[in-house]
This record gives sequence, C-alpha cells and structure tokens, in this order.
Amino acid sequence: MRKIDPTECEHLVSSIELMASHLENVAKILNKEDINSMISDIMNANSIFVMGAGRSGLVGKTFAMRLMHLGFTSYVVGESTTPAVEENDVVIAISGSGETRSVADLGKITRDIGATLVTVTSNRNSTLGELATTVMEIPGRTKDDVGGYLERHMRGEYSQLTPLGTSFEIASMVFLDALVAELIVITGASEADLKSRHAKLE
Amino acid sequence: MRKIDPTECEHLVSSIELMASHLENVAKILNKEDINSMISDIMNANSIFVMGAGRSGLVGKTFAMRLMHLGFTSYVVGESTTPAVEENDVVIAISGSGETRSVADLGKITRDIGATLVTVTSNRNSTLGELATTVMEIPGRTKDDVGGYLERHMRGEYSQLTPLGTSFEIASMVFLDALVAELIVITGASEADLKSRHAKLE
Amino acid sequence: MRKIDPTECEHLVSSIELMASHLENVAKILNKEDINSMISDIMNANSIFVMGAGRSGLVGKTFAMRLMHLGFTSYVVGESTTPAVEENDVVIAISGSGETRSVADLGKITRDIGATLVTVTSNRNSTLGELATTVMEIPGRTKDDVGGYLERHMRGEYSQLTPLGTSFEIASMVFLDALVAELIVITGASEADLKSRHAKLE
Amino acid sequence: MRKIDPTECEHLVSSIELMASHLENVAKILNKEDINSMISDIMNANSIFVMGAGRSGLVGKTFAMRLMHLGFTSYVVGESTTPAVEENDVVIAISGSGETRSVADLGKITRDIGATLVTVTSNRNSTLGELATTVMEIPGRTKDDVGGYLERHMRGEYSQLTPLGTSFEIASMVFLDALVAELIVITGASEADLKSRHAKLE
Repeated sequence: MRKIDPTECEHLVSSIELMASHLENVAKILNKEDINSMISDIMNANSIFVMGAGRSGLVGKTFAMRLMHLGFTSYVVGESTTPAVEENDVVIAISGSGETRSVADLGKITRDIGATLVTVTSNRNSTLGELATTVMEIPGRTKDDVGGYLERHMRGEYSQLTPLGTSFEIASMVFLDALVAELIVITGASEADLKSRHAKLE
Repeated sequence: MRKIDPTECEHLVSSIELMASHLENVAKILNKEDINSMISDIMNANSIFVMGAGRSGLVGKTFAMRLMHLGFTSYVVGESTTPAVEENDVVIAISGSGETRSVADLGKITRDIGATLVTVTSNRNSTLGELATTVMEIPGRTKDDVGGYLERHMRGEYSQLTPLGTSFEIASMVFLDALVAELIVITGASEADLKSRHAKLE
Repeated sequence: MRKIDPTECEHLVSSIELMASHLENVAKILNKEDINSMISDIMNANSIFVMGAGRSGLVGKTFAMRLMHLGFTSYVVGESTTPAVEENDVVIAISGSGETRSVADLGKITRDIGATLVTVTSNRNSTLGELATTVMEIPGRTKDDVGGYLERHMRGEYSQLTPLGTSFEIASMVFLDALVAELIVITGASEADLKSRHAKLE
Repeated sequence: MRKIDPTECEHLVSSIELMASHLENVAKILNKEDINSMISDIMNANSIFVMGAGRSGLVGKTFAMRLMHLGFTSYVVGESTTPAVEENDVVIAISGSGETRSVADLGKITRDIGATLVTVTSNRNSTLGELATTVMEIPGRTKDDVGGYLERHMRGEYSQLTPLGTSFEIASMVFLDALVAELIVITGASEADLKSRHAKLE
C-alpha cells in the first residue's frame, strides 16, 4: 500500500467555503419574476419532463424525483417508461452553457410539439436560452469570476476548486431543491406526504 | 391556464441561505483524519466503485464521473459495464442514514470479498458505518437541528426547507466535489486534463 | 491494425439456430394457466412495477416500456420517478435463478406491503418462486440441456453458444413481447395507439 | 378484482413462433463479410462504445455487458463513467431505422473524431448506414414482410404480434449474443472467465 502524505485539506475546505459563498450570492441575485414563471409553468403542466446531459442530467433526476414525492406527474427524458410529451406538458432542460447539442435538439422538438420549455442555465444568450418559454438563470462560473469573491479570495485557483461545470451543477441542485421548498408551501404538502410517495423498493 | 399567485420566493431564498450556512458549518467540522483516510483509500485502489440508492445514488454518480475525469478507474454499481469488485478495489457507499437495506447488503459482500469499504453517511453508528473500513461523516439534518442555526433562525420550518434527506444529499455532493479539488492538487491534474476525458458523445 | 482471420461464423449461426429452436420449444411448453394468471395480475393492477438485476433487469425495462406504450401505468424499480408500491399494484420480478439476492429482498418487501408479486424465472423452486403469488416459468438452460436439442446437436458446446443466463434472458424477452401481443388483442390497442405514446424526446 | 376471461394464448404462442421462424431466417441470410468486418473492428479497438435509443439502447447495454464479461474494455454512451471516445475506439450504434436523430448526431461526432462506427440496423440506406464504416444489417420487419413467412402464415396480424420495432430489437439481441459466442471461440474465453468478471454487487 502506497503511503499518501496526509493533507491539511485546505483545498477541500476552500472549495466548500467557495460554494457556500457562491450560494449566498445566488440567493441574492436570482430573478423572482423568472422563478414565478417557472413555478407557474410547473403548477399548470399536465406532466413535467426533466432532461440534461452528464452531471446536469443527474441533477435533473434529483429534481424529478422530488416532484414525484410532491405528487406531481414527473418523468426523466430517456428513462424506460417516460411517455410522449404533449402540448400541455412542460419540459425542463438543464444545461450550464445552454449549448449541449442533444439537449438543444430535444428543446427544439419540445417547442415544435407546442409544449412549454423551461431552460435552467447560466447562459441566457444560448441556443436553449433562446428556445425557452421561461429562462431560469443560475449564475455559474463565468459570472462569479470577475472582480468578485473569487478574485479577491481565491487567487486564481478557481478552476481547481470547482472544475468544469461544478459551480453551476451544485447551484442548480440547491436552487431546484429550494424551489421544492417553495412548492411545498404552495401545495401545502407535509414532509409525511413526501415520505409516503418515496420508493419503498430500493 | 390556472393563475398562480406570484410569490415573494421567501422560502426558496431561505432554503438556499440555509444550505449555504450548513455548508459553512460542514467545512468547519469535517474530520481531517477521515478525509485523509478516504483519500488514501482512493489513491491506493485499483478501481473505485460508487453505490447508493435514490438521490444519494445520483450524487454518487456525479462523483464517479469526476473520478473518471481525473484519470481514476471508476464505476457505478448497477451500470451496464461495471465489472466484479476485487480485493484491491474500494467501494464507496453513500447513505445518509447508513441503513439503506440494499446498500448495506452490498457493503457486506464488499467486505466478504476483502475490498475496502468507505461509507459516506451522517450516521456513524449505523450498519454501513460499522461495516466500513473508513467512515466519512457528513453532518446532515439531525446534527444541525439542535440549538444551531436552524432553531435560531428557521423557527421549525426546517423540514419544509430541506425535506427528507436534502441537506445530507447536497452536503455530500459539495463535499465530494471538494474532495475532487483536493485530488486535483494531489495528482497535479489540470482542468484541461479533466476536459480531455469528458464524454464527447452525450 | 491487427489482421483477424475471417471466420465462417459457424458458432454465430449455430447460436442463433439454437435460440430459434429453444424458442419453438418454449412456445410449446409454456403453462397457459400461469400466463392467464399473469395477464389477470397485470390487467387488475393499479400500477405495474418491473425489477431485475443485470441483463434480466434490462429485459424488464423493455417490457415496462411496452406496457407504457399499451396505456398501462408502469415503472421500473430504481428509476428516478418510480413511486412507492402500494397494495393494489403488481411487481414483476425477473430472475433466471430466482435467487438474485437484492431482487429477492425487494420481493419480500413487496409481499409485506400486500402487493402482488409475479416472478418470471426458470427456477420455480427458488426464493423468488416461493415468494411469488404467480410464478411464470420460462424454460432456461438447465431444462433444455438434458437429452434434448442441445445434446443431440451441439455436442457440449452449449455453454459457449449461450453463456451464463443468455438463453433465459432471450427467452424472457421474447415471452414478454409475446405477452404484449396477447395484451394488444385483449385491450384492443392498435399499433398506432402504441406509437402515439412512444417517447418523442430520445 | 376484475375477472379477465382466460385466453387460449394463441397470439402469444404465434408471436413466439413467429420470432423463432424469423431468427431461423436471420441465421441464413446474415452477410458473413459484414460479420467479419464487425469482429475485426471489435478485436482491434482500444475501447468499445455502444449506443442506441429506447429498446435498441437496452439491447446495446446487454451486449456491452457481455463484452466486459469477455474481457474487452466496453462502455455504454450516456452512463456515468463513460470516457471520451478516441481515434482507436469503435462505436457501435443500434438503430432499426438507422434514422434515430440523437444517435445519428453522435454517429457524426464519432466519425469526426476519427473513430470507427459500426451501425447495427435493418436499413442500410439510412443516415446511420451511410455514416458507418461497417454496416451490420439485421433483417427486421420490412424485409420479412413481403411474400415470406408472415404473409403466408400470419394473415396480416404481424403488427399485433411484433409491434413497432420488436422484431428488429429481438433479432439484434440474439445476433449480438451469437456474436459473443463467436468471440468466445476466437478469444478462447471459458464460461468461467466470463463468470469471474460478472458483477458481484447487484
């Protein structure tokens, strides 16, 4: 067994602190009109479909699962028993860049069907941003990077501490879970209601 | 189309702030010896397997994907081409309660094979905690709940703001991504290295 | 580029012929009472859940998808938006040996909930066979192997031609698709009905 | 509980017999040059990637799993730890029509990367057929339908007995498992070798 020199874990701790700080910032600058539009889209939909590639797709699955717990009819695009999208459905696309090719293609089909398309992205001016009926912008790395917390505190280590799409993916997951909190209040669901729908076979 | 009364989004904002505050707390109280033990397990393993049920399983997938980006040989238990676990491998089980039945069963098999078992959990004194060679404790809801931020600020709304296992799931995801940051420094990987391994077909 | 000696493909051709012959045999010896019992379980269920490990699990997913196309409410155990099983639901477990540990564990939970458990297996006298309310036996390798087509024609090459659970997995898939054919007639569904429910986002 | 009239299962039995007959036909008319080309592509590849949408994608997963059992490095496009495709890799696309949009898009990217693309399809003259370096044609419904077994025996019930892509999906699965049989002989693998790589955590 190779001996690994013990680390002071300073990068790990900095990375968590950086995400905490990023989330505080996100809480302040989210656009409330967009949030209300997204809530309205979800509440009015017949069924809610979630899609995304890679880690954004996994974040989408955590959200679709909670929507089911809340009593909504929700599906993940690409899973086995996901049916055809119809006009009265909403499709929620998650893509940091807003340019993920396959997701953008499905976004176009969504609009052709006449269904509502919500894009959760850090880039409003993107293919998926422009296709969407509602754009829910989650500040990701680019926005943060300039003259903010990162420059002041992280001395350029940002790409090590939250590489690739990490900051968008975590911020999206926290945002979507916070949206669940809002939906719990709106629908009057209790934690026991959620638990009763939670899979018993797992 | 039903008209939904616009909301001030106060529960959504509180939920994000609560998670940010929780993460700051997590950054402070993580056990550095456990982290070093987990890092050593990963660095010494032939292959790294990740498993978990439900949302914890999805968090596990985001971590396994980043390990692959970093150049490690990593697998998700239950995916199509995941091979047999062997003695020199490490299996990382993610379970807030440490009691998820199917995951605990696989944890026992892992130990019978002679492989290393790391349990990421908020409950050290659990079946998976006791089976593990390394327990990586991530404070979840219970720990936070007493006399801390929640009681002082949230006045009992905690279960609405981060229902079920939400706080553990997000804290695990942020912790595991922060562990990736530490591993980036240890292995000397650059963001370009990670990007070069990122799936091109998605 | 390595030059691979061209093959006459005789093992490939023999393997397909062997499966064709096996299926003809399966068509003859399936127990019609069991089939009617399984049809009745499906028609009476509120929701239909399908589960299995490895390749049997993938066969289960192809069946769950077709049930959805047919208009049934169907789910795959372990997918993101699969809800809690309830008393009026049926759970279909697919396991050649009938002994797959995790599936058997979930079979027990299914019965504890009071839901109907159908086991599709080549081994009636197994844990999952004994737990089930309906056992749908699909002859697999063992049954076939003695004094039948294989001994007469294959001269002991059987394990090469359909290794591990291959013959059960294919026979199950063909059987379940044939059950879909029967359900199409019973429900009066047209191919156009099925197509209209087929996922448009894929 | 609703009483379902017991059925003589004649459609179910006919559907299995039809598939058996179809497979016998497939065994006769498969192009051996294509098979040898596909075997050579697989044997020479660094890594083997499999992709497909819906039920074809599930068939692809059963094949990727067996390739891993055989000792090949294989991945399923879209799973968590699937890395970047590189020049010396082969990508196997499964699509009955050869026109599945997202799969065709990924086929284009595969060729742009310079990797080998094998298309398993019932339609050689399709987008994926034309993109491929090797086309492995599996006769599906169309081919069978004219003047053959179906017309003579099934009196137009074909679309009920094997609706949508069923006959292609099953024929592909049986073909790919038969290809595994051929690869077992070529590589000299024993069933015990396969079993030793089979997932122990499931």
